Amino acid sequence: MSEIIAVLGSGNGGLAAAADLTLRGFRVHLFNRRAESLAAVRERGGITLIDTQADQTEFAPIPVVTTDIEQAIAGAQVIMLAVPVTAHAYYAELLAPYLTADHIVFLNPGHTGGGLHFMQTLRDSGVTTPVRTCEVSTLTYTSRITGPAEVTCYLRAREVPFAAFPGKYAPAIIDTVRALYPGLQLYDNVLDTAFLNINAIEHPPQILCNAGWVEHTQGDYYFYYEGTTPAVGRVIDAVDAERLAVADRLNIKTKSFVDMFCEVGYTTAEAAQTGSAYQALQASEPNRKIKAPKSLDHRYIHEDVGYGLVPLAQFGAMAGVPTPTMNSLIQMASIMNQIDYATTGRTLHKLGLAAVSAEQLHEFLFEGDI
Amino acid sequence: MSEIIAVLGSGNGGLAAAADLTLRGFRVHLFNRRAESLAAVRERGGITLIDTQADQTEFAPIPVVTTDIEQAIAGAQVIMLAVPVTAHAYYAELLAPYLTADHIVFLNPGHTGGGLHFMQTLRDSGVTTPVRTCEVSTLTYTSRITGPAEVTCYLRAREVPFAAFPGKYAPAIIDTVRALYPGLQLYDNVLDTAFLNINAIEHPPQILCNAGWVEHTQGDYYFYYEGTTPAVGRVIDAVDAERLAVADRLNIKTKSFVDMFCEVGYTTAEAAQTGSAYQALQASEPNRKIKAPKSLDHRYIHEDVGYGLVPLAQFGAMAGVPTPTMNSLIQMASIMNQIDYATTGRTLHKLGLAAVSAEQLHEFLFEGDI
Repeated sequence: MSEIIAVLGSGNGGLAAAADLTLRGFRVHLFNRRAESLAAVRERGGITLIDTQADQTEFAPIPVVTTDIEQAIAGAQVIMLAVPVTAHAYYAELLAPYLTADHIVFLNPGHTGGGLHFMQTLRDSGVTTPVRTCEVSTLTYTSRITGPAEVTCYLRAREVPFAAFPGKYAPAIIDTVRALYPGLQLYDNVLDTAFLNINAIEHPPQILCNAGWVEHTQGDYYFYYEGTTPAVGRVIDAVDAERLAVADRLNIKTKSFVDMFCEVGYTTAEAAQTGSAYQALQASEPNRKIKAPKSLDHRYIHEDVGYGLVPLAQFGAMAGVPTPTMNSLIQMASIMNQIDYATTGRTLHKLGLAAVSAEQLHEFLFEGDI
Repeated sequence: MSEIIAVLGSGNGGLAAAADLTLRGFRVHLFNRRAESLAAVRERGGITLIDTQADQTEFAPIPVVTTDIEQAIAGAQVIMLAVPVTAHAYYAELLAPYLTADHIVFLNPGHTGGGLHFMQTLRDSGVTTPVRTCEVSTLTYTSRITGPAEVTCYLRAREVPFAAFPGKYAPAIIDTVRALYPGLQLYDNVLDTAFLNINAIEHPPQILCNAGWVEHTQGDYYFYYEGTTPAVGRVIDAVDAERLAVADRLNIKTKSFVDMFCEVGYTTAEAAQTGSAYQALQASEPNRKIKAPKSLDHRYIHEDVGYGLVPLAQFGAMAGVPTPTMNSLIQMASIMNQIDYATTGRTLHKLGLAAVSAEQLHEFLFEGDI
């Protein structure tokens, strides 16, 4: 096979995807808006992928490395966004003139409401073409750039929750996208995957309830292990309880934080059974030695509050379910970072849901409008 | 002079008051509800007062040391409560059968709404006598018990804001109470003093925005100096802005946090002029070496959220002024300590203000009812 895949974004996720897909027989076009972010890959003509699970290192030649979006997507059916969630709207505007009904825009990951936000941005840009998007709940690679044009992949996610928006297109696109990632699990709609975004539940309490510690030490403590004390764990539990109540009211399939945390391999079944985020974090090996962010100017707040808690809390309002703990974290984050996340973040308006009621939600998710 | 003063409470403040007033010619009756808290004073027949400012040590004989409230207040016109704010209602119930129109109940300090809470508890106990209360905004001593029957006084507060409830009694009682503390400054009403409670503005952000740090280290960092980083300072500033807006709408005289902090000698005029709590704390010498609490089971939350932010936020609701930052801190504290401070704390109902409107507030404060 030699299908063309456009990979947009050359960060940790983008380079891992570009290298991995190349080595698996796809022809990758790699795009970044900044030439300097592509210089090393262009110079070497490809990417070295160090796979720690398979214990092997391979070089993946990348045929097209470009800052030209038209060149990047030329001939590609699948356009994969491996970018920070805060860049989804930017990419929608960038792609708006070029998208056709044949394209599949794949948000890897969609975080909370990525496809909805992408599509509403297209509409705001005047696009009327029936564009198809799909997304996964979490990035399909755990990877870090470890050198010039070199990426180390620690973990490939298996059984990743996956959904399309509008949902009616899922049958037509699932086989194409499964060719890239055979472990994709098809969910009913993009809120089923959005609500599984574990980071939005975990990171805001962890960073905001230790804001002074982060700033004073510039992140010099073990963020997950030392920073998640019983009280911080109780805040995570409270956020999670609100999320579960909202999901329940809106008929969104989901799981508890500790169950998700266990299923992705972050903690033991025994710890998950306690139902306590604190216990789950204490028993978590993978995150144990990860230090805290150096400052509060970090995606644990910008993304996980603005693009996670803000939409979750607004879904709460749509559902008539109170979310006082989420609201409190949004307020604290806004004061601390002097950013009004409730308006700059992913609002229902930006998701195209401003005029959609709880009763209309599932029809909208399936049809793309009401 | 040999006037009898009943001092209720034998903690840091109570022992300092008992010793100081004795040495200044008053006859003190010292009360505690627990005999063991009085054992050392009873055994030695008095209290050693170490005055670090005057650099002198004196022994103050205490003639009555008792767990019997009737014996404690026998012959006393002034009954001084030098107790934690959370004990005000307990003392109101204890004193209810004995109070007369001649008594002056002096809450040292009243924290936020002490006199109002005390009086409403009396009413709930069926008291119809026109009882007179008065209070100061902050304890008149900075002191610590440093040995058996020994208290060290580091600072005597001068120019302490003082008010009576009902306010109409102030002219009749001010001279009596000024005999105890010549520096008392008479304010119009007990909300003028309540709103000057600096702890409620400062401590909740400082402890809640560092909850994990407190729990993980069991308080092993400098609470005010290291723990008040720019982001934590911004939360203090936000709480203070809400407090000032509520006070303005309710015609309550007050000052900014940084100005109060400067006036009590905690920071420099230069730092206060920045208007930034962070700058004020960074320039503060007196608090620099104070460690954090060992846990979140601490008066910085129980008192300063439950008896500080809760009433301030409820005054905000009365005034129609939003208090989102205060509400967020109350929510975070409630989750962390598993205590619903919004109901267990000092509500408008407990202050006797459930049926009092913003327009009626000042009449109520002066008359004691509407």
